[in-house]
Amino acid sequence: MSASVLTGAGPKRSATTSGRAPVVGVVGAGQLARMTQQAAISLGVELHVLSASADDPAVRAGARHVPGSATEFADLVTLAAGCDVVTFDHELVPAKYIQELEALGVRVAPSGAAQRLAQDKLHARRTLAAAGFPVPAFGYARELAQVLSFAETHGWPLIAKTPTGGYDGRGVWTLADAASAARLLDDVDGGLLLEPQLRIDHELAVLVARTAEGETAVYPVVETVQRDAMCRELLAPAPIAPARAAAARSLARSLAHHCGAVGIVAVELFDTADGLLVNELALRPHNSGHLTIEGCETSQFEQHLRAILGWPLGGTALTAPAVATGNVIGPADGSDPRDRLAAALEVPGAHVHLYGKAPRPGRKLGHVTVCGPDPERCRRTAQFAVAVLEGAAR
Amino acid sequence: MSASVLTGAGPKRSATTSGRAPVVGVVGAGQLARMTQQAAISLGVELHVLSASADDPAVRAGARHVPGSATEFADLVTLAAGCDVVTFDHELVPAKYIQELEALGVRVAPSGAAQRLAQDKLHARRTLAAAGFPVPAFGYARELAQVLSFAETHGWPLIAKTPTGGYDGRGVWTLADAASAARLLDDVDGGLLLEPQLRIDHELAVLVARTAEGETAVYPVVETVQRDAMCRELLAPAPIAPARAAAARSLARSLAHHCGAVGIVAVELFDTADGLLVNELALRPHNSGHLTIEGCETSQFEQHLRAILGWPLGGTALTAPAVATGNVIGPADGSDPRDRLAAALEVPGAHVHLYGKAPRPGRKLGHVTVCGPDPERCRRTAQFAVAVLEGAAR
Repeated sequence: MSASVLTGAGPKRSATTSGRAPVVGVVGAGQLARMTQQAAISLGVELHVLSASADDPAVRAGARHVPGSATEFADLVTLAAGCDVVTFDHELVPAKYIQELEALGVRVAPSGAAQRLAQDKLHARRTLAAAGFPVPAFGYARELAQVLSFAETHGWPLIAKTPTGGYDGRGVWTLADAASAARLLDDVDGGLLLEPQLRIDHELAVLVARTAEGETAVYPVVETVQRDAMCRELLAPAPIAPARAAAARSLARSLAHHCGAVGIVAVELFDTADGLLVNELALRPHNSGHLTIEGCETSQFEQHLRAILGWPLGGTALTAPAVATGNVIGPADGSDPRDRLAAALEVPGAHVHLYGKAPRPGRKLGHVTVCGPDPERCRRTAQFAVAVLEGAAR
Repeated sequence: MSASVLTGAGPKRSATTSGRAPVVGVVGAGQLARMTQQAAISLGVELHVLSASADDPAVRAGARHVPGSATEFADLVTLAAGCDVVTFDHELVPAKYIQELEALGVRVAPSGAAQRLAQDKLHARRTLAAAGFPVPAFGYARELAQVLSFAETHGWPLIAKTPTGGYDGRGVWTLADAASAARLLDDVDGGLLLEPQLRIDHELAVLVARTAEGETAVYPVVETVQRDAMCRELLAPAPIAPARAAAARSLARSLAHHCGAVGIVAVELFDTADGLLVNELALRPHNSGHLTIEGCETSQFEQHLRAILGWPLGGTALTAPAVATGNVIGPADGSDPRDRLAAALEVPGAHVHLYGKAPRPGRKLGHVTVCGPDPERCRRTAQFAVAVLEGAAR
């Protein structure tokens, strides 16, 4: 694989000035920015967050609110004007705006060129395949004939994804046959990224922090457990052979360099009989890294700040032999996990994180992490605390 | 020893209401409130802090600022009006105001009666001695004859303290002879608490969290290392025999019950050839508990919130065999540790906490915690990172 082909336009060294607090601008004010605000307090970093509502999770946590929209260039400029470096808690900023900010001399981390890999799944697949990274077989279809041709090679069912904008199972479908493919093509704009339904032994995630100079810190491999197309659990270390874990970490580090990423990169991998395949990338703190808050020497949120501010990276070792995290999802009955917090705090060893979001069915509202000597016990404890919060504990 | 004689007027059970974030009012906005704000984010708790300046550490960390003074009753009422429970980051609120707030139906934790033990060292000594708790020999002097009489029994030198208002070595003197005693009596109002200069094997601190119902959670015993009359280092577990540690924890728990404390109680102990002696109490999160952030299952800040909100208490076990914390003190040259943050982040395993305070010589500006298998290595690593921040590393 080649060295970085996309050169990051991020900060080249410490982005801060003596005598005042470093200021980091975050586009978006969701739970990722909220937990970054927590980490920023220890380091004496000030966070400014661009979002529509003063009720957003990071604003409620005390980050300074810059009212505005991630898709309005003028609002991005307003945010950037008060900040040493600008970063992101989602992928909704048009890449051309990021590049225009960079052209104005704004330090942006990660760069617009790097972010396109996280914004556009088709672009990422093509770029990574061309660079020799292992990716699932894929195709692109705007017309039924293209779907049928792909199915002829790879068989039904197929997985179809919108190249941009999907998350938490939205924008992903399983196509059983030509009829369902035809219906879906009628419904979506912009074509479909196709891939075969793979036999996956484990879904894995590896976080890498990278500085503009190319220093990296790679986290232990995490198994991500999905239910209903949403990530529900994280388990570290992932229950895979050491050689496979080493390969996953090496692959993730190479990808971070190749992207020219600055900050946290989350690499989602499929562990298959044919080896590791790169599924998706995120160039920011990521749900799969929530267990790093209590479970690793340096949380992904502190590490992201260190990386984008040009500071030394911290250690990534697990703080316990096993760490398990469960996501708290808004229950179908619309009830509020916050009303069950006291009961969840009864669960020994449960570290509860609530995001300050109004409950909606299927919405990520928090997570629970448990560290300990025994993986199965950690997992069951985290699951139980999550069930208590979701109102599902018996 | 008797059970609680001072009945806490704190919350009797969960102080929160369904459907909105619990709101905790803190009188004061220093580093204790700042780190409480960090803990509050995870639990979805909103913090309102009463202080004169919007530049205070907790306000800069995002707690909601209620401008005002801890010694103006109207300002305390304004703070309390928006809060489910009111607590404190210092001992400067007149006890009568706390009792007047309680009379208005405000939930205050800890209660005014309990807090008097932390505000007035002489009152604490008398109360605890009367209840049978082991305290150093002590006397009270307004006139030289009283000092000389105490010295006749206990010998020179003596330790003299102002009963109220002292901290970090302020308000404490060593008296070598009658002449120095006479000079000091001329300078101070309100008399002096006297004690003999003890031979102390270790200075210890034990944190206890207590709920209004009387549930307690006791933390591991910490050794506090003083230099220039300021606490410079914390070491856990304290290097003392298990029986002595058990006695210290038992003593601290009994004291928390006796005070009727609600929230964190920090009990400072002298470990002497004559056994454990109670030095001072604080009824709030305390410098000696800063190592609980990374070093214990539940930080003292989260634990304080749990206790005052009537929620279950969390585990207190150490997360590693050894934990060491060093305080970062403003250097004599007036330079700013924040300018040396990047260098400190190079130190492997150093968890750096900066309080966002302007540097002044002798002022506590931050701390560094290191967890690991080896106590001496943790201590040396923390000391080194502190030296880097203080500009003293060679």
